[in-house]
Amino acid sequence: MSRLPFTSDYMQGAHPNILARLIETNMTAAPGYGEDEFCLSAKEMIRTACACPDAEIHFLTGGTQANATVIDAVLASYQGVLASESGHINVHEAGAIELGGHKVLALPEHLGKITAGQVRDAVHAYETDPSRDHIIMPGMVYISQPTEYGSLYSLDELTALSEVCREKRLPLYVDGARLAYALAAPENDVTLADLARLTDIFYIGGTKCGALLGEAVVIPKAGTIPHFFTIIKQHGALLAKGRLLGIQFSELFRDDLYLTIGNTAIRSARKIREALKANGYRLFIDSPTNQTFVIMPNKLLPVLAEKVAFDDWGPADADHTVIRFATCWATTDENTEALCKLLADLHA
Amino acid sequence: MSRLPFTSDYMQGAHPNILARLIETNMTAAPGYGEDEFCLSAKEMIRTACACPDAEIHFLTGGTQANATVIDAVLASYQGVLASESGHINVHEAGAIELGGHKVLALPEHLGKITAGQVRDAVHAYETDPSRDHIIMPGMVYISQPTEYGSLYSLDELTALSEVCREKRLPLYVDGARLAYALAAPENDVTLADLARLTDIFYIGGTKCGALLGEAVVIPKAGTIPHFFTIIKQHGALLAKGRLLGIQFSELFRDDLYLTIGNTAIRSARKIREALKANGYRLFIDSPTNQTFVIMPNKLLPVLAEKVAFDDWGPADADHTVIRFATCWATTDENTEALCKLLADLHA
Amino acid sequence: MSRLPFTSDYMQGAHPNILARLIETNMTAAPGYGEDEFCLSAKEMIRTACACPDAEIHFLTGGTQANATVIDAVLASYQGVLASESGHINVHEAGAIELGGHKVLALPEHLGKITAGQVRDAVHAYETDPSRDHIIMPGMVYISQPTEYGSLYSLDELTALSEVCREKRLPLYVDGARLAYALAAPENDVTLADLARLTDIFYIGGTKCGALLGEAVVIPKAGTIPHFFTIIKQHGALLAKGRLLGIQFSELFRDDLYLTIGNTAIRSARKIREALKANGYRLFIDSPTNQTFVIMPNKLLPVLAEKVAFDDWGPADADHTVIRFATCWATTDENTEALCKLLADLHA
Amino acid sequence: MSRLPFTSDYMQGAHPNILARLIETNMTAAPGYGEDEFCLSAKEMIRTACACPDAEIHFLTGGTQANATVIDAVLASYQGVLASESGHINVHEAGAIELGGHKVLALPEHLGKITAGQVRDAVHAYETDPSRDHIIMPGMVYISQPTEYGSLYSLDELTALSEVCREKRLPLYVDGARLAYALAAPENDVTLADLARLTDIFYIGGTKCGALLGEAVVIPKAGTIPHFFTIIKQHGALLAKGRLLGIQFSELFRDDLYLTIGNTAIRSARKIREALKANGYRLFIDSPTNQTFVIMPNKLLPVLAEKVAFDDWGPADADHTVIRFATCWATTDENTEALCKLLADLHA
Repeated sequence: MSRLPFTSDYMQGAHPNILARLIETNMTAAPGYGEDEFCLSAKEMIRTACACPDAEIHFLTGGTQANATVIDAVLASYQGVLASESGHINVHEAGAIELGGHKVLALPEHLGKITAGQVRDAVHAYETDPSRDHIIMPGMVYISQPTEYGSLYSLDELTALSEVCREKRLPLYVDGARLAYALAAPENDVTLADLARLTDIFYIGGTKCGALLGEAVVIPKAGTIPHFFTIIKQHGALLAKGRLLGIQFSELFRDDLYLTIGNTAIRSARKIREALKANGYRLFIDSPTNQTFVIMPNKLLPVLAEKVAFDDWGPADADHTVIRFATCWATTDENTEALCKLLADLHA
Repeated sequence: MSRLPFTSDYMQGAHPNILARLIETNMTAAPGYGEDEFCLSAKEMIRTACACPDAEIHFLTGGTQANATVIDAVLASYQGVLASESGHINVHEAGAIELGGHKVLALPEHLGKITAGQVRDAVHAYETDPSRDHIIMPGMVYISQPTEYGSLYSLDELTALSEVCREKRLPLYVDGARLAYALAAPENDVTLADLARLTDIFYIGGTKCGALLGEAVVIPKAGTIPHFFTIIKQHGALLAKGRLLGIQFSELFRDDLYLTIGNTAIRSARKIREALKANGYRLFIDSPTNQTFVIMPNKLLPVLAEKVAFDDWGPADADHTVIRFATCWATTDENTEALCKLLADLHA
Repeated sequence: MSRLPFTSDYMQGAHPNILARLIETNMTAAPGYGEDEFCLSAKEMIRTACACPDAEIHFLTGGTQANATVIDAVLASYQGVLASESGHINVHEAGAIELGGHKVLALPEHLGKITAGQVRDAVHAYETDPSRDHIIMPGMVYISQPTEYGSLYSLDELTALSEVCREKRLPLYVDGARLAYALAAPENDVTLADLARLTDIFYIGGTKCGALLGEAVVIPKAGTIPHFFTIIKQHGALLAKGRLLGIQFSELFRDDLYLTIGNTAIRSARKIREALKANGYRLFIDSPTNQTFVIMPNKLLPVLAEKVAFDDWGPADADHTVIRFATCWATTDENTEALCKLLADLHA
Repeated sequence: MSRLPFTSDYMQGAHPNILARLIETNMTAAPGYGEDEFCLSAKEMIRTACACPDAEIHFLTGGTQANATVIDAVLASYQGVLASESGHINVHEAGAIELGGHKVLALPEHLGKITAGQVRDAVHAYETDPSRDHIIMPGMVYISQPTEYGSLYSLDELTALSEVCREKRLPLYVDGARLAYALAAPENDVTLADLARLTDIFYIGGTKCGALLGEAVVIPKAGTIPHFFTIIKQHGALLAKGRLLGIQFSELFRDDLYLTIGNTAIRSARKIREALKANGYRLFIDSPTNQTFVIMPNKLLPVLAEKVAFDDWGPADADHTVIRFATCWATTDENTEALCKLLADLHA
């Protein structure tokens, strides 16, 4: 693949620290299923980073898996999960939530986000529906930070969501597949400690943020989900060599690496957006994180595709296609500049 | 953990070749979801090793996950899976098969194995049951090679199973979590090509056989399971960085490493069994692969546990406990000898 | 309950012919599970009424049950069911479809209906989505005749839907919970034979159309769903005394009773609509069958509720509520006139 | 069907009182979904009969449906249900429990029954299993009264089961599909009040005990299953015309009819068993209720089948078949005597 690599944030391997530590620890014997010292130590580092000393933490291998397992564990059969229409669980998980028996209660979105007001309205509509015993009850709220479109919930927005969720006794769950890119964005004002304080469950994404694979599910109030270990096993989500996840997360959280690992991606994405704007391209959404969505004229696609690997998000209209350039911790300045130059040469 | 490490075959990291290759390829960009060159190349190597040029191959991350995904994909809702009572799917997967909606139809076993005759009888019992429309139909057969107890199906036994399965149109599925330890056992006469020829689906275990994680599901007749990629996604079993599995399996199958990676484990297990027999211990089962099950007097357990990490399989009777010593590709001669000496010192 | 009974079309017992026949046959012994003479005879009558001599027919007890059982039997795990947003399966079945593991792919509607064009577009969107292997595939189409709002698919509309479904290999399924009220409406041009000719599965509603309970699932091409009997059993939808359904449907189809049993309801509903319009009320939808939806001023509700039992469909705006008057085979002229008079006395 | 009707206890319609009341109330309008006066009144009668004034009661339509709905509502995903190997849920419900995601944890039985000791042992085995987080936890206990083989739990046996269940916090659920035949048996010492006092949920069978269809699920401690109404709906188990069930159960419990409706069946079954013994037939089990299981020489089957409708329970050995004669509330003395005479004529 000699094209410039901007398809996704999972095109390369892992942060070098992780590989180094894997080699260093390779022949050390450890117990299985996440009960090893590496996992224990990684959990402790995450608790510290989240300022949440009692948090319960589990390491899973992927985002769809984490979402399906957590949501199935939290919901009763007569409950559904509120999410934005573009939410990953509503579109790109091949029906994993429904396979688990649960309805996704999709809400219209603005820039990929839903609001506290929408949650309040949805609960009110349920509570006042004369047929409510025949319909699915809102049972939890799912959001992602950043969202599918790279936008961010502000601390005010998250606080408002948290308040309505607590008032209505709806667990609030945050999908943090790309959380490092939120944390690295200057526009972001939501910290890990805020997430631990304001949500009931969230996960810290590893796969897209420097790990080979892995997501750390954080349950700030330990015991919220009884027998979650067995539920993880039952969903085929328990690694025998749990150490593989423990080692990676202990590196991601050593010296707060996770808080800065997204910096390169953010800087690079900003350059790309500037190049796009400067050359007359139309952004699909002006998001502050590592994904840049452009409404690209179809006539430019073939020549672009020859030199750049990007992601196709489907037609915008008869003559345009939404495409995505994703940057990540591994994006090089050289590649970013090459992409910017190419965009300038083509211009919109 | 300074105790001698014999708890399981997933206590260490990965074969050094794998780590070396991970480092070498780390910054190479590749597409996600298993469509990378590493996966394509690994699949080609596996097809060659299985003498099955048209096989369809998918990489998943763990055994329970592979079993639950394959079985859910194969069975109709009105069908169940025949398996031995001690089968992993019947006991140690926390109900993952039932979570998918399917009944495990458990058969009595001999040394962890079931026979062609038992399968024939089960199908006959179903077909001649006057109430058969009210009961679960046998819909596939699950075995593992080696079994939970480390025993092996001979080529004759596997051929007989295959014949009855084909006659009765039951897909035959083989769980190969520890397949490398079968392939390395001198007593074994079942090759990868035999598995590809005689079964409908099987998986080649990576996690316990030298990989960090990963199982390669082989479908000798491509297309047997329509839309299996989406089914994998739906079960949370699709890795974004599929390359991680492709790289590992391409190393495991380079120069037939997988066929020999179990040799050390087999040699070491044999020494342990000899030490046990020589010192009057009673084997729970005399199996030829990497797991050794002993009926250990309870009074010896505390002192043993001080020096050795082993696996507790529960009480045999009031005074004895079944314990397991597992060896693997990473077991050292030094540790094996230390264990043998300790067993001699204690003796039964 | 001395209020005028217009809440629903399931407020009374059964058509007198049914009760008479239940008494007549009460002590006749018959085999269980629908293998009795009454069921066989009812099925034959239905085949004749549908001009479909080879149809496979099963009797279930309710609409949600029939929908959940049929849809679960038809869909693969990676498929969903296209339906209108207001479709019964999308709203009022308490998530029964999702409990079975399937996503309802809701389409915007016009008067409760979806079009062939929408189905074609949805399939096209799926087929051209670059991420289609990560999303749910449209696997069947669900409509109801009449719809939730009492509107009707014309023969042209149904034919167009059937054509696109056959072209795209999507089974077309029709929920006929209130089918008798479609068949009795002068505006209707879709016969039972049309349904048998144009759909893959449909059900003829008994519960709301003169029976104590029961729905007849018709599969025009027998064998479309293998082992459907067992699937019915597995869903708890098989009656031991299947005769109860056979007897009822044989009465409903004796002398084509089912084709005319809705006449009274239609005549009565028309009178109510005329009274509403004449007195300045605003209809929510002007449907030609047995349900009349009105946007009622909230200030009239208390006095109305004192004298009439109606169904509350929730707020239309701050000052109005959508309510439903349902008529049925058992509605009396006396009650209809009393309701019309009351509406005139109140007027909007 | 002119053969003597002894196949099952669901070959005829309903007790005459029920039909009379259906006719009497037929045109009375009532609200749907079980909120009618007939249901309310039937529930009150059942509470009285159970000496359990606070019991929560729901009417469902069949036994498999009741079992699948209750068990799915009670169990967490990581739990299974303990039951005897021959339990209806383990064999004859076509996998309905597994379809709901739950494993049936089958225990060996004696005469169809399981003991308090077995339950205690199963829980102990789970609690002391070193791998317990990887296996299914016993989450409730299912028994039936009478059992599949017509045997009865004594009050002592039920009390012991209740005690271990309460100690271990396992809900105890009793399937009473044929409960009237237990209550009518002289050998029985378990009353409805005992069931309400000793169990967490049980159902009073209607279908096989004089109703057209219907089972009354009794939850002695109301609120044990939150949102059970919606769960019932979700399982397709909610009748629109709930009145049909309310009317029937109010007749079954008027003047304690349910306590005596089984008398005829018991008397008749005893005569049949005496005739069998007197004529040298071998009973499969000597049960005191309405089902008689005989090990019948195969050579007698054709001539028997010519004159009697009985149930085939499959081969006992090469030369014998287990068959069942079932009596019920509708069995006539005439038919019983004809069967006894025939058995004497044939003799074993």
